[in-house]
Amino acid sequence: MASPEKFIVEKIANFDDMMELTNLIEQGTLTYLPHISVDSAIFSFHDGLLKVLVLRMKDLALYSLPGGYVGREEDLDGAAQRILRERTGLEAVYLEQCGTFGDHRRTGGKKSEDVFSTLGVDLPAGCWIMQRFISVGYYALVNYAAARPAPGHFDAECIWCPVDQLPGMIFDHREIAGKALETLRLLLDVKVPQSNLLPETFTMNELQQLYESILGKPLLRSNFQRKMLNMEILERLDKRFGGGAHKAPFLYRFRKSMPE
Amino acid sequence: MASPEKFIVEKIANFDDMMELTNLIEQGTLTYLPHISVDSAIFSFHDGLLKVLVLRMKDLALYSLPGGYVGREEDLDGAAQRILRERTGLEAVYLEQCGTFGDHRRTGGKKSEDVFSTLGVDLPAGCWIMQRFISVGYYALVNYAAARPAPGHFDAECIWCPVDQLPGMIFDHREIAGKALETLRLLLDVKVPQSNLLPETFTMNELQQLYESILGKPLLRSNFQRKMLNMEILERLDKRFGGGAHKAPFLYRFRKSMPE
Repeated sequence: MASPEKFIVEKIANFDDMMELTNLIEQGTLTYLPHISVDSAIFSFHDGLLKVLVLRMKDLALYSLPGGYVGREEDLDGAAQRILRERTGLEAVYLEQCGTFGDHRRTGGKKSEDVFSTLGVDLPAGCWIMQRFISVGYYALVNYAAARPAPGHFDAECIWCPVDQLPGMIFDHREIAGKALETLRLLLDVKVPQSNLLPETFTMNELQQLYESILGKPLLRSNFQRKMLNMEILERLDKRFGGGAHKAPFLYRFRKSMPE
Repeated sequence: MASPEKFIVEKIANFDDMMELTNLIEQGTLTYLPHISVDSAIFSFHDGLLKVLVLRMKDLALYSLPGGYVGREEDLDGAAQRILRERTGLEAVYLEQCGTFGDHRRTGGKKSEDVFSTLGVDLPAGCWIMQRFISVGYYALVNYAAARPAPGHFDAECIWCPVDQLPGMIFDHREIAGKALETLRLLLDVKVPQSNLLPETFTMNELQQLYESILGKPLLRSNFQRKMLNMEILERLDKRFGGGAHKAPFLYRFRKSMPE
């Protein structure tokens, strides 16, 4: 079985056959709304690092965030959930908007031509896929061990990348990832307990590593511990790691009901 | 001169002539992107109350938030700024997104037909204006005295309404206003100093009234004052109201540079 870190496929574009791609080009707007897309920053926490899921586009040194179009009969949030499910296998995880990206030159024109032609896909001039898109950005907080990253139609691989080592990305996807991280930082104390970033139980040290990884800076251990305990969101468990050693760290979990 | 509280116009729809309306219906998608709109909750603070600008649609007991379409060559944020300028005369005020609303049944079909037919506007079946729209919600924080509310093409009046007395609204505009208020509440301590909700100088009592009005609940005076002073965002001024009375309240203003 492949490592969950990296799935590689060899096809140029992962469509079952060229017919599927032709249909998308010629009749896509019967299925999807034009001009609107969804792009998601899917975060997980692993090896002490906050990571984001990125897709490498075939033959490009460029990466993208997982994204897609919105079905004509599909809710916007539903499209984001579907895209998350398609790329990670996960459902019902923490998923929220972080902003909508609508500069009129963010996609379209030569920018879109360059991406698709390098992918080996020649789109007809004026094709809906090549036009201007306004993209609704989402961010998801998922459990690393539960996610099963899978590439999409246009991708060569799907990998977890530490947020401070993001590769070159298409369009404004780096900005979307940045806005997602900024949104997470602003509301960290509220969002982390609601997320699956940590396993059910964790040590204070693991929680601090997660905070440091999201904030991108080290925190003073004593201050951090005091702040966390004062927030009254943690429940300290009796059991400890392993057996006996009196220095083994306490385990914590988030309280089921949070104080207001 | 009319009171700034209420501007009323008598025309059915405020188009210069029917030609302008016909153009919008028949050729609107040459100018605007289909399926995407902007709706804004524009907040001000007046008479101790947080108010939001709403538009009454002619012959309807229904109100709407100020909104509009996105020009094909216009940035999304630019569209929100234009709509704010058209409805209030204001530029360069605090304006941010609060979320994008995309349930697939939020507009379109019978919902849109009902609104436009009651307005006396008969739109042809399948007209782009009647189709599904995904709306990007914005919220603005403006100075009440500086705003000059003005109705739009389909509106009979444009009024400031206290946020806890919102009238019936079209589509999901009530939900958009609610999300805007929720976003403001979440980030209150950051947003209020950046806004023009208060005049340049204000008393602690006025600041508390603003907070209470946004949060929708009374706050303990001593706690509020201590919290505000601890945040180190306020500068206390020497001058006081009027002359002499030693009980006259201190005036404050927000510091130019905020602590991190």
